[in-house]
Amino acid sequence: MIVEAIRDRFIATRQRFLTICEPLEVEDYGLQAAEFASPPKWHLAHTTWFFETFLLKQFVPEYQSLEPLYEVLFNSYYNGIGAQYPRGQRGLLSRPLLSEVLAYREHVDRAMLLLLDRNALDADHEMILARTVLGIEHERQHQELFFTDLKYSLGANPLYPSYRFGTSSASEVPLALDWTAFEGGLIEIGYAGDDFCFDNELPRHRVYLESFDIANRLVTNADYQAFVDDGGYARPELWLADGWATVQREQWDSPLHWVEREGVALEFTLDGLKKRAATTPVCHVSGYEAEAYARWADARLPTEAEWEHMAMQTEAGESNSGAFPSELCHPQPAKGSDLGQIYGGCWQWTQTAYSPYPGFAASAGAIGEYNGKFMSNQWVLRGGSCVTPRSQARPTYRNFFYPQDRWQFSGIRLAR
Amino acid sequence: MIVEAIRDRFIATRQRFLTICEPLEVEDYGLQAAEFASPPKWHLAHTTWFFETFLLKQFVPEYQSLEPLYEVLFNSYYNGIGAQYPRGQRGLLSRPLLSEVLAYREHVDRAMLLLLDRNALDADHEMILARTVLGIEHERQHQELFFTDLKYSLGANPLYPSYRFGTSSASEVPLALDWTAFEGGLIEIGYAGDDFCFDNELPRHRVYLESFDIANRLVTNADYQAFVDDGGYARPELWLADGWATVQREQWDSPLHWVEREGVALEFTLDGLKKRAATTPVCHVSGYEAEAYARWADARLPTEAEWEHMAMQTEAGESNSGAFPSELCHPQPAKGSDLGQIYGGCWQWTQTAYSPYPGFAASAGAIGEYNGKFMSNQWVLRGGSCVTPRSQARPTYRNFFYPQDRWQFSGIRLAR
Amino acid sequence: MIVEAIRDRFIATRQRFLTICEPLEVEDYGLQAAEFASPPKWHLAHTTWFFETFLLKQFVPEYQSLEPLYEVLFNSYYNGIGAQYPRGQRGLLSRPLLSEVLAYREHVDRAMLLLLDRNALDADHEMILARTVLGIEHERQHQELFFTDLKYSLGANPLYPSYRFGTSSASEVPLALDWTAFEGGLIEIGYAGDDFCFDNELPRHRVYLESFDIANRLVTNADYQAFVDDGGYARPELWLADGWATVQREQWDSPLHWVEREGVALEFTLDGLKKRAATTPVCHVSGYEAEAYARWADARLPTEAEWEHMAMQTEAGESNSGAFPSELCHPQPAKGSDLGQIYGGCWQWTQTAYSPYPGFAASAGAIGEYNGKFMSNQWVLRGGSCVTPRSQARPTYRNFFYPQDRWQFSGIRLAR
Amino acid sequence: MIVEAIRDRFIATRQRFLTICEPLEVEDYGLQAAEFASPPKWHLAHTTWFFETFLLKQFVPEYQSLEPLYEVLFNSYYNGIGAQYPRGQRGLLSRPLLSEVLAYREHVDRAMLLLLDRNALDADHEMILARTVLGIEHERQHQELFFTDLKYSLGANPLYPSYRFGTSSASEVPLALDWTAFEGGLIEIGYAGDDFCFDNELPRHRVYLESFDIANRLVTNADYQAFVDDGGYARPELWLADGWATVQREQWDSPLHWVEREGVALEFTLDGLKKRAATTPVCHVSGYEAEAYARWADARLPTEAEWEHMAMQTEAGESNSGAFPSELCHPQPAKGSDLGQIYGGCWQWTQTAYSPYPGFAASAGAIGEYNGKFMSNQWVLRGGSCVTPRSQARPTYRNFFYPQDRWQFSGIRLAR
Repeated sequence: MIVEAIRDRFIATRQRFLTICEPLEVEDYGLQAAEFASPPKWHLAHTTWFFETFLLKQFVPEYQSLEPLYEVLFNSYYNGIGAQYPRGQRGLLSRPLLSEVLAYREHVDRAMLLLLDRNALDADHEMILARTVLGIEHERQHQELFFTDLKYSLGANPLYPSYRFGTSSASEVPLALDWTAFEGGLIEIGYAGDDFCFDNELPRHRVYLESFDIANRLVTNADYQAFVDDGGYARPELWLADGWATVQREQWDSPLHWVEREGVALEFTLDGLKKRAATTPVCHVSGYEAEAYARWADARLPTEAEWEHMAMQTEAGESNSGAFPSELCHPQPAKGSDLGQIYGGCWQWTQTAYSPYPGFAASAGAIGEYNGKFMSNQWVLRGGSCVTPRSQARPTYRNFFYPQDRWQFSGIRLAR
Repeated sequence: MIVEAIRDRFIATRQRFLTICEPLEVEDYGLQAAEFASPPKWHLAHTTWFFETFLLKQFVPEYQSLEPLYEVLFNSYYNGIGAQYPRGQRGLLSRPLLSEVLAYREHVDRAMLLLLDRNALDADHEMILARTVLGIEHERQHQELFFTDLKYSLGANPLYPSYRFGTSSASEVPLALDWTAFEGGLIEIGYAGDDFCFDNELPRHRVYLESFDIANRLVTNADYQAFVDDGGYARPELWLADGWATVQREQWDSPLHWVEREGVALEFTLDGLKKRAATTPVCHVSGYEAEAYARWADARLPTEAEWEHMAMQTEAGESNSGAFPSELCHPQPAKGSDLGQIYGGCWQWTQTAYSPYPGFAASAGAIGEYNGKFMSNQWVLRGGSCVTPRSQARPTYRNFFYPQDRWQFSGIRLAR
Repeated sequence: MIVEAIRDRFIATRQRFLTICEPLEVEDYGLQAAEFASPPKWHLAHTTWFFETFLLKQFVPEYQSLEPLYEVLFNSYYNGIGAQYPRGQRGLLSRPLLSEVLAYREHVDRAMLLLLDRNALDADHEMILARTVLGIEHERQHQELFFTDLKYSLGANPLYPSYRFGTSSASEVPLALDWTAFEGGLIEIGYAGDDFCFDNELPRHRVYLESFDIANRLVTNADYQAFVDDGGYARPELWLADGWATVQREQWDSPLHWVEREGVALEFTLDGLKKRAATTPVCHVSGYEAEAYARWADARLPTEAEWEHMAMQTEAGESNSGAFPSELCHPQPAKGSDLGQIYGGCWQWTQTAYSPYPGFAASAGAIGEYNGKFMSNQWVLRGGSCVTPRSQARPTYRNFFYPQDRWQFSGIRLAR
Repeated sequence: MIVEAIRDRFIATRQRFLTICEPLEVEDYGLQAAEFASPPKWHLAHTTWFFETFLLKQFVPEYQSLEPLYEVLFNSYYNGIGAQYPRGQRGLLSRPLLSEVLAYREHVDRAMLLLLDRNALDADHEMILARTVLGIEHERQHQELFFTDLKYSLGANPLYPSYRFGTSSASEVPLALDWTAFEGGLIEIGYAGDDFCFDNELPRHRVYLESFDIANRLVTNADYQAFVDDGGYARPELWLADGWATVQREQWDSPLHWVEREGVALEFTLDGLKKRAATTPVCHVSGYEAEAYARWADARLPTEAEWEHMAMQTEAGESNSGAFPSELCHPQPAKGSDLGQIYGGCWQWTQTAYSPYPGFAASAGAIGEYNGKFMSNQWVLRGGSCVTPRSQARPTYRNFFYPQDRWQFSGIRLAR
């Protein structure tokens, strides 16, 4: 990519974070209802820290930091950079104030734009551009986390505050589940384009697949309700042993954000409590719940290779269909009986444990901690959700969470 | 007391909370760094809830609540009223906003003033006045907790923010510890005046005391440093068994809010990090630390009866001396070699477990939960600290905390 | 006491431990179902360690230890002696074998008898005798713990094994609760005889008591059942706050060792599961349960001074009555309507927190850790239970446990 | 297999458990030093329970159980059978006594032999034989767990008791690490023979492999010491994030069972504490440690497909070489520079998360819980250790443990 394009993308991405924060009140910026759910203010600062740490401090000798402690306060997990303020205590940072964090953003943005302008002929030019693109993609990931973390934290408030949008009037006509068949054989997976991808999407490599069928749409609230009604959360034979232990320990009996009030089935959304629509995809289920549902339904979760193979065949149509519900922070019902809902609804749990592709090598230095060190105990999710930046919805993108996690917009697509 | 006096006291007390909040930023109002350290906004709302719950909802049939859920959100521990929002999650209530909590205060204040005005001839008149006075004293207690909780929560931020005041320029001339002797015999303790007291200060009753000596001043930072330097935190023989277990588990090696930075002895105050003054009282020690220090110093902590007996003899002089450092949120050095520092410096740990006086009876109903149900496992502290409302500094006032607690302004006075 | 008497008492006490162990199987000797419930084999070894550590190693230069590591393995909590094997892991010591522990006992016994014989004229003579007496009393305490710990550990086995005795055929004729009045005034408590007492029973000192009534018998299973049936475990207003938190956390709904099976009220005893008798004292209740029961019954627990004063007036009759059910490891019903059941049934919770008497001083050195360091957070129990050695049942004996503890034979006597 | 062969195998396997128990003392049979380390007595009973539950109770209508509660006490994790006595409390079952458990074994053995004899023409004949074989293999797995659990539990005793064997005089001549290259391509993995295999070894299926190299021997104590000396346990960049968190939480600084005493490098073995031999394989490392070591050594762990492919090429030589150190419960040094140590030394961690092969289906009913429900969060280990029954050492056998587990005889073979 040329500098101008990166510069524009940088400005637009940085600006978008301010835009999606607009509906917040000052009090909301510090909210952290769980160790994993960072406050909005921290996301604003950490994404800034990323540019400061991996670009300005490395390539701009005269760069002046506003406050040396920010290096510690806004370091997420990079041991190569140094100490980190405890993750679970990010909500305790009433200072720096929101206004100070915004000033920090401006300070870094100014320095970044100078850096992008002046380095065209430098030896480090390529590295600077690559790092900037990584910082942009990193910020996009945090913009998605902004939504999921915020939803989790607001959901801990019995007043169920609304963040912003309507959730749209979902069609209530149910659509039968159907299967699409794919031939097995020796295929290839992994990124092969010439735009950006994360290191964990590489290298492209061969995989042997058996033939498989995949569902044309995501599992809906109504589908999942049938599982609940059939005693799904009380029958250990449907669950992995670790999943069952989690159900018992956490006393789960429905997806996160499902609410029952005086006999009415509700759902907490980023627009507050709403009636739970039968035809929208079930969302905020853990990998364990997805896996148990699949077993109950005499099916299974796809592998990540199957999912990617499926997406490569069908992506074009999907992305032309304008499936992204841009401003709606809630998954929408399937639009037709063709294979769909690939992106823009819910992330889709696969049965594949997150591990390195054959030949994977992490980058040198602290930046190498980005993805590689998380390659154990997590499961791969594929696709993208209603709060995923559109640019990150691609067939090869590997999202990953622990099988017990359910605060993401995560849903279920069946295979067999 | 007559209605007018109560009315004035009500208005002044309610106003004072707003005054002491003035130095805060909006972001600070939601801060909660531990389950025991409630956010400023919650204190503002809970003290309001107290008047709403125990007065307006009981004596004003037409009273309209602003939001029914406040009954749950701002109930501290009154099972007789109903469910309580979990104590440790008060910092998660970004809503109601600060402005909404302030509106809640105004709403309740208006209704309270109407209630105080119109009920002069009612059957409930006496009860209403008594409850109002209790509500005022309750709010004063929370104004003290505002300071201690805020100090704890700001202290969790590596930026060590300042709340407001200077901490005064403490004299550095050390004052030798001296002892005052008191005769034993059959004495009386418990409240005997005709103003307000809490139920736990009653009934006044006889206690037999052996003769005892009591220290004329509080233990200073310099005194306590000698204990630390002598291996105080590494010698189990100086500690109660439960205290030693706490030291090990919490890895204590100095009082809370002591900070060492590049070899300099500092102390976190409500005006940020300051040099630790040798002559100011040691503060923020647990009962276990106080008890271990006393053993190390070949002394002991006073009993609560000894302390009260001492204070009754010396109070007049003390309270005439203007010992209250009004606007300084930090204990001050002793002013002379006479028995002093009784109020206005640090709460003083006694060796007495908090239990009911002979013949104690809690009030009927939920209000009876105010004090009585806490009469186990805690220790009595006497006196009052630099952030205690002056009206609550009296010889008979019984403060109580767990022996492991140290986020209050708690210090040490020796006896033998 | 003269040497011969101590020698005899030593031999008899050491022998008694072997006698009470006789019903055990080898497999039972290592049983530890909770951190607080030490295995029989460990008690056998630890009581031996006490003589070895505080007598042989100090007064017999040529004494040879069988195994140096025993110093660590069988040290209970004496930091002054050195490191301790973790308390909760005592059940993991399959080695030393039972036969090796018995050999250890014999080895130490031989050396102790030699020591007692030869030192008649030594400078250390008095100290050696005093320590030996303390060691004997210490072993007697552990013989009581042997029963309580064993009952707890066997009770964790769904087979509910029997240890030995019948539990006697309890009379089923209920006896009405009655009150005995005692005059208040300035009294004295604390040990005043010339036989042995523990340091915590000293010094004898004056206490002022208000007049009080005390119940003539212990609370029975039938009494307590009425409390349970009245929702006692579901009504927070009956409980201390810490007690209520314990009820919730531990999900208590009846005393320890109560068992319900197919609608039949049973009780685990040292003779296995038995029908729960209405007239036997309720046993294995915590201090919290005792206190809540008393509140429900419009009464209260006695203070330890009240209890001791009561016992001093009535002891003679009691101990002449042969109240000790010698070989029955289960409390027996009250025998008549006079004030009774003072010893030999259940320990009786008082409302008094365990703390030092005025002027208390612990012994110097590690032996000083015996009692003093536990004087916080525990409650005093008075009397003695059906498994208490008769020699330790005296009016001034201060037993102490945490208010949440209930594996002792602890019951309830009311006062008002 | 014909009935006679199964009958013989049944008798031999049942007998072998008694043989390997012979060196134990009665006290050792109840030992459980961690939730995962079941006592010998429990293993003896549970393997018996397996035959009783899945054969006698299903196929022998007149079968009489000795004690109905055994169904609960000795059920490991089969929810389909019913409730289970808590896993972590197995050490609390002093009853049934060892003699009773041995009688239980005889009772079941008699019934099993009758069942095997009489059913030759029954409809259930095939099912009974298959279940019997499964029960035999199950017992063999528990015979291995007997060793690993016992080693863990004895290792918690500071006396470091010996179980039985010498550990052999290990050669101290180090052998250079060398690599063997394997061609990639489309290969097959999974069991293909006609003897027994577990369900998780099926179905045999195709996998595409890149070319790879594999180490000719296991990593030795000397190799691993170099990693420790190079700060391996203090450098987060060498670890997976979850591994690093485990190192910090557990304060690991060396493999389990390594002991340092007065500067001498020792190792706890089933023959007590021994000098740590440089040339024996490092053992009792977790998956995280294996993975970190590999990264430090510029290598990686093999995938399970790579390992199986390697073993299929080399097995013949290996198993002809008599590599099994039959009676030595300790891994032995490599014998030569050829690719070796495939079985009989240490289980070898792979980088592969344990998951179902494509097309895997668990058996119907409770027996289906055997393997399938554990297919998450664990890692596959391949090979077999010095305590693995020889019959279970085969190329397709999939062992699995959590990456933090290290009480098995687990070691490291590198790949690249």
